[in-house]
Amino acid sequence: MSQVRVHNLSISLDGFATGEGQSLAAPFGHAGERLHGWYVETRFFHEMGNQTGGSGGADNAFAARHNPGIGAEIMGAGKFGPPGWQDDPDWKGWWGPNPPFHTPVFVLTHRPRPSIEMEGGTTFHFLDASPSEALERAREAANGQDVRLGGGPTVVRDFLAEGLVDHLHVAQVPIVLGRGVRLWDGLESLEQSYDIEAVSTPSGVTHLTFTANTR
Amino acid sequence: MSQVRVHNLSISLDGFATGEGQSLAAPFGHAGERLHGWYVETRFFHEMGNQTGGSGGADNAFAARHNPGIGAEIMGAGKFGPPGWQDDPDWKGWWGPNPPFHTPVFVLTHRPRPSIEMEGGTTFHFLDASPSEALERAREAANGQDVRLGGGPTVVRDFLAEGLVDHLHVAQVPIVLGRGVRLWDGLESLEQSYDIEAVSTPSGVTHLTFTANTR
Repeated sequence: MSQVRVHNLSISLDGFATGEGQSLAAPFGHAGERLHGWYVETRFFHEMGNQTGGSGGADNAFAARHNPGIGAEIMGAGKFGPPGWQDDPDWKGWWGPNPPFHTPVFVLTHRPRPSIEMEGGTTFHFLDASPSEALERAREAANGQDVRLGGGPTVVRDFLAEGLVDHLHVAQVPIVLGRGVRLWDGLESLEQSYDIEAVSTPSGVTHLTFTANTR
Repeated sequence: MSQVRVHNLSISLDGFATGEGQSLAAPFGHAGERLHGWYVETRFFHEMGNQTGGSGGADNAFAARHNPGIGAEIMGAGKFGPPGWQDDPDWKGWWGPNPPFHTPVFVLTHRPRPSIEMEGGTTFHFLDASPSEALERAREAANGQDVRLGGGPTVVRDFLAEGLVDHLHVAQVPIVLGRGVRLWDGLESLEQSYDIEAVSTPSGVTHLTFTANTR
């Protein structure tokens, strides 16, 4: 069976995966770019933007797991656009004409709209659906490949709470955000369902991997 | 100037340093011993209990920093005894006749009582005082040596919020506790005052050290 994977979900020491006050100008709220500094420094990220350079070590090894074997993505409304994007019929995501997904992407929203076909193989579909319903649609579209759960934290939490995630990669950044959206709330004893490894890298980030132990 | 140091403060992934429902039978509430498994496995802990064996690697290196150079400890009421110990005139702490401190220990409580001299150099003093007042008393007693801030999390948080901590060692354990007392609350941007390092060890624990960058 195809797996459900989460990659490169960055959180602060106090467990916030995004800051407070998200907007068009501040996609991660008051967190700014602080949660993703390690990621944008990697070779993987540079190559996505057709740039050369970037680090090639452990951070890059984790970052680059984003794409291989993925046939579809599920994301929350909060990842697709700033608060209120549902009122803008022309909003097509943050990523320009050629988004870095290159697969079908299922956007969970209570206000679905017609699908949008972008360049490079990305098609955005909009679903008002439960996690398991959305997963069924995404699995079908993935055609035997894995489904990436792209975030944000609320959606990841919902899928974790229902036991639908096979592999979770969290990058813990040494900052204290103080406020925002927490990843771990409502997930008491999550560790019982996963084999967990931790590794810290020279950038100061600690990569945590959760691999489901019952599947 | 003597430093204020915190050692071996264990927290869960979601930042809880103790569980919910603390009592005489459950000093850490529903967390049980899960936060301290790495610590009791160390040679340092074994030796404290006059036992042989225990691990001698990275976890032990961190654990053993508890004692050298310390001349006094400050602890919160919640570390000294279970809820309600103030009503028991015979309560002398969890640690038996020869507690593992071997220095003056200042217990912060709104209901002070006369000092208690124990075996092995530990004397418990009881103070109704602010963090800075308590620190002044402890520094005097430490006689040029460092002051250990022994916990629990509420007291550590209070001292961190007032900028009184020079060195903080946190051991992050890969469990999700879900409830209890959080360490990081109210400490937004704490990282700006510290150089932070992270290292994960084979036991699965990630040791975080915060070293004040302005002193």
